[in-house]
Formats: sequence, C-alpha cells, structure tokens
Amino acid sequence: MPTEPTSRFLRACYRLKTDTTPVWFMRQAGRYMPEYQAIRSQHKSILEMIARPQVAAEITLQPVDILGVDAAILFADILLPLPPMGLKLEFVAGRGPVIHNPVRSPDDVAALRPVDVAADLGHVFEAIRLVRAELDGRDIPLIGFAGAPFTLAAYMIEGGPSRNFLETKKLMYGQPEAWHALMQKLTPVLIDYLLAQVDAGAQALQLFDSWVGVLNPQDYRRFVQPYVRQILHTLMAQAEVPIIHFGVGATTLLREMKAAGGHVMGLDWRVPLDEGWALLGHEVAVQGNLDPTALFAPLPELERQVRDVLTRAAGRPGHIFNLGHGILQHTPVENVRAVVDMVHEFIWK
Amino acid sequence: MPTEPTSRFLRACYRLKTDTTPVWFMRQAGRYMPEYQAIRSQHKSILEMIARPQVAAEITLQPVDILGVDAAILFADILLPLPPMGLKLEFVAGRGPVIHNPVRSPDDVAALRPVDVAADLGHVFEAIRLVRAELDGRDIPLIGFAGAPFTLAAYMIEGGPSRNFLETKKLMYGQPEAWHALMQKLTPVLIDYLLAQVDAGAQALQLFDSWVGVLNPQDYRRFVQPYVRQILHTLMAQAEVPIIHFGVGATTLLREMKAAGGHVMGLDWRVPLDEGWALLGHEVAVQGNLDPTALFAPLPELERQVRDVLTRAAGRPGHIFNLGHGILQHTPVENVRAVVDMVHEFIWK
Repeated sequence: MPTEPTSRFLRACYRLKTDTTPVWFMRQAGRYMPEYQAIRSQHKSILEMIARPQVAAEITLQPVDILGVDAAILFADILLPLPPMGLKLEFVAGRGPVIHNPVRSPDDVAALRPVDVAADLGHVFEAIRLVRAELDGRDIPLIGFAGAPFTLAAYMIEGGPSRNFLETKKLMYGQPEAWHALMQKLTPVLIDYLLAQVDAGAQALQLFDSWVGVLNPQDYRRFVQPYVRQILHTLMAQAEVPIIHFGVGATTLLREMKAAGGHVMGLDWRVPLDEGWALLGHEVAVQGNLDPTALFAPLPELERQVRDVLTRAAGRPGHIFNLGHGILQHTPVENVRAVVDMVHEFIWK
Repeated sequence: MPTEPTSRFLRACYRLKTDTTPVWFMRQAGRYMPEYQAIRSQHKSILEMIARPQVAAEITLQPVDILGVDAAILFADILLPLPPMGLKLEFVAGRGPVIHNPVRSPDDVAALRPVDVAADLGHVFEAIRLVRAELDGRDIPLIGFAGAPFTLAAYMIEGGPSRNFLETKKLMYGQPEAWHALMQKLTPVLIDYLLAQVDAGAQALQLFDSWVGVLNPQDYRRFVQPYVRQILHTLMAQAEVPIIHFGVGATTLLREMKAAGGHVMGLDWRVPLDEGWALLGHEVAVQGNLDPTALFAPLPELERQVRDVLTRAAGRPGHIFNLGHGILQHTPVENVRAVVDMVHEFIWK
C-alpha cells in the first residue's frame, strides 16, 4: 500500500475501516443488463467488443452508473492471452468458448508462442486508460484481472468447458513434464499481462482460478501452487495494488491458495463467510459470498441472505461484498441494484 | 447391527477390525466394462435393462467376478421412483436423463402421484433376490440405494443435468411451500423404497445426494436436512443394515449431513481423507476417496494416489476404499482391477 487509499473498496482490500461495506459483482457488466444488450446487438462477437477499447470502456462503466457499485472491473475475458500463444479461440453461441486446436501433447506445449503483451494485447491497456480517464475524480477504483494458470491450462487442454476435466488430469498425471512446461509458459505471460494492466492504470487485480476446485489439495500443491505463488509474489513485490485471489468450489484449497498469495481471498457461496474467514485467518481480507441464484429470489428472501452474509462478516474491516460466482444471465437488474442499497444501508447494531 | 458380521465390507461399515481394507467402486457395473457393453448392445435402453431382473442381476454380479471387489451394488438408477410419481423419464443418448414434464409449480407438485413400491418397482426387489441367491455363501454383501430427496427434486425441477440449478433454487427461495410439499412427497416414497430393498435382501444401503454440493449449509439446514434426517432415522430404526450417506463437492455440508444420519459418510476426492474424517469425527465410518480420473494415470502415479488415501486412513477401522465419485466411461478395466489388488495388499508398517 503506497499511501492510505480513500475509496471504500481499496480500503477494505487493505483491511482499513470504511463508512460502509463496499460492494461490486463478478460479471457485473454483461448479458443480464439491457444497456449491455443494446451494445452487444451492434457487434458480431464478444471478442470484437473486447478488441475495441472505446466499446470495452463503455461497457465497463455501465454498472458503475446503473448499479452504484464501489468498483469497476474491466470488460474483458480470461482467455485473451490464449490466441497470441497460438490457440484458435471462438465464442460459439449457446456453447461458450471453444478452442479449435486444444493442447494435448508435449509437442503442443512446445509449439506455444511467447506473448509480447504490449503488442498482442494493447487494446486491453488502452481500454484501461479510457476507463481511468472517465472515472477521474470519482474515487471508483478499476479492477484488472486474469485467469490463473490452472484454469487457463484446463481451457487450453479441454478445448472448452468440461465436466470431469479428464484430459487436463490425464496430462497432469500421465505427462507431468508437459504439464509443468505448460505452467512455465503461462506464468511469465500472466505476470507481464497483469503488470501491464497496473501500468495502464488498474488499481487492483483479481486472479480468477474458476476451475481449480476440481483438484484436491495434494494435487494443487504439486501441480499448481508454485506457479500461482510465483505470479502473486512477483506482483505483490512489483505492483503497489491489492490482489484478490478467487476460486469456485475451492473450500478445501483455501489455505493453500492463501499461502500462494493475495491480499483478499474470494469465497464462493458454499462456505459460510465467517467459517471461510476463520479458516483463512483474519490477516487477509475476504470477498463474497452471496449465492448468485439468490438474485432471482423475492426481495424479502434476497434481503435475508444479504443480511446473513453481512452478519457473518461481523463488521470486521476487510470484507468486500460480492457474489460467490458471476452474475447469471437473466438476473433481474433491479434486484442487483437493491443489493447494493441493502449492503450500503446495513447498520451494525 | 444384529450379530457381528463376517464380511470385510459390513465390518468396516460398523468400524470393526478387518483383515484388509474393503473396496468397491461407485458405478462399478457400467459402460467402461466390455462385458457390460455386450449386454447393453442387446437392449434398446438402460431402463429396459433395469426393468428385467435377470439382466440387472447379471450386470450387478459382473464386477464382483471381474474386479474382485468386496461388495456388489444393485444395477439400477436413482431416478426409478420418478416415473411412478408421474414424470416422463427418458435416457437420451449423449445427453443423459431427460424429464419431459419437469416440476415447476405448486400445481405440478400437487399432481405428483403416491408410489406403491411393491407394485411399481417390483422388478428392483426381484433383481435383489436373484443377486442374493447367486451370492449365497460368498460373503459378498449387496448394497441397495436410492437418490436423496434434494438430488431427486433437483432432477424433477431442472428436467435433467444442470449447471447452476437455477430453477431448483428459484422454487426453493420463491415458493418454499411448494418446495417443502415436494420434499414431503418424496420422503415416504424413499423410506418405502429403501425398506423394501432391505426386505428383499439388500445388506447395506447408500443414499446418493450427488448434487447437494450446490447448496450452502444454511440452505441445507432449512430446505433439506429435516427430510434426510427423517429418512435415515426411520431406516436406522427399522432396518438392521448399515447406511452410507454420500454427497459430491459437499465438504462444507459434511457436518450437517452427518447430523442427518448414516453409519458411513462418503467423501469425494476434494477433501484429504484424514481431514474429512477428522471434520466428521471418528465415531462414523468413511468411504472414499480416490479421484476417478486417477484411474487413467500410469500405474506408478495411480499407486501413489491409492497409497495416499490408505495412508491417510491410518489403519483405523471404519474405512471403505472407493472413488470420490462414480467410475468414468472409458476407464481402463485393468487399472480398476489393479486398485483392488493395491488396496488388499497394502500393509501397515
């Protein structure tokens, strides 16, 4: 922490007192929002929207104005570093991301190209600069992000979403040299990419290890933790921004993930916030952890669940309210806005 | 426990000493096995095979002879009680089970029919009698099973596998009376069904709550636990067989699931066996918990993982070796057989 920040969100990242609990939502810019749909309908693909800094910046800012959240997160995708490495990525309607040339062998790993982030991903940094210019004077920090190496490797190997992650684990267990070579290729790309986001103006970073919950702690320690540690420790040494480290279904990995680094640990909705925080220790901040499906509930039930999360945080500095995973398609926008108000108006008796 | 059992499997369920650790596998009879495929190719559908007691019995016995496991589990499906309740169930190739008239409203719940298990599911009990006759004198117990009410309700509501279980949670949060009415309809059906399996000769029971891991403990206590407790406590009072209670991705629910009942708690692969057992307390037995994908690994890596599970069990009576979830399609049969030998030959130094 360079100088003591003033915004609620950054203060909570460093476990400093705030006037009220800060709140933002994973995937707060997206399909559930009519203003996003209006822009989406003018473009052929999500990748095209992300590639245009003006468009990405506009979408990034939508939830700040419409929802009243305490932080913005760049509109981008965790898979952006993959095409420069040589992977043919396409977002297929109704199916999600597909990689047409998945990585399955040591030769596939060897063929991956190094990434020059400034040249290959310059549009991301330009979008960050545009958002920061728009947010000038508003004390709403901008969060940059990347996928963690396990989750990116799993996408690269499976070629898309997977149920059992069998190909990933076959490579891990059966060709560990190829697995480690893949992680060693991803690690510097992610360090460069995240440092360049900070250079462009990102005021916090989130590392999304969305799929890491399919591993047990033994495999996490063997196959993943050294690389996450290298990324997070490099960032913590070289960038003066807080880092949020998040996994889904990863309760049994929380201690190992915390040991790998981060100022803030993201909790999914499966673990009660007080239990998750106690498991981690109170020397880290936590982010979470409303069930995203609760946003479809009638307001009294939704409020009950929001208050449950806040009550479990017990007014301790270092809680950032969020969902336990991203906002789902068709989520009612008015309920998301209502949660922002509930969080901001919650009073400790 | 009526009189002290002699088989390894039943002794371990009651935490009695055994000569070696007993082992069986969830979904040990199925598509990965050529002998199963040979029978499968002669029938139009899985439901047709299950409906023929001779066929179901033959498939049930295949892994006993081929793998050398210490228990048989009836070849059946957790969804069998749904068609008698009025649901149109079909197993669609490449997609899995589909329910063509999912339950979405209070009226849909009210329209569900009561089940006369003897009349509606008689083929299941006939298959159990046939298996028991075949196993006569071999001291290989037969496990009966059913789906737990949450998992069955989620199938009924979603109409098939789901990613976010949004419809299920919308009903739970938005129409809790309809949810509780659905659970109250499922509870007596499951009690009757499981008691009748014991009457027919099942020597142990497993309750599969395969999808319960999408809930947090707060929701489990409100919406699920009372019904599971009623089922398991009734069975524990009225049937003299051990009960295995299993969920997937349910580490944060383990204490609540144990409180709901069962002699043996199933652990998935995400929690190290020693940590899961310590969390539960050593007054229950545990079953698990090799990652099913480890069966695709080269033998030295597979053996490393098998020994890790056994080492964490620490020779304590009350461990039944199993996977953390069902055997996957395309699993090499020789590796499954090798695990049986590894477990049986493991020696405590």
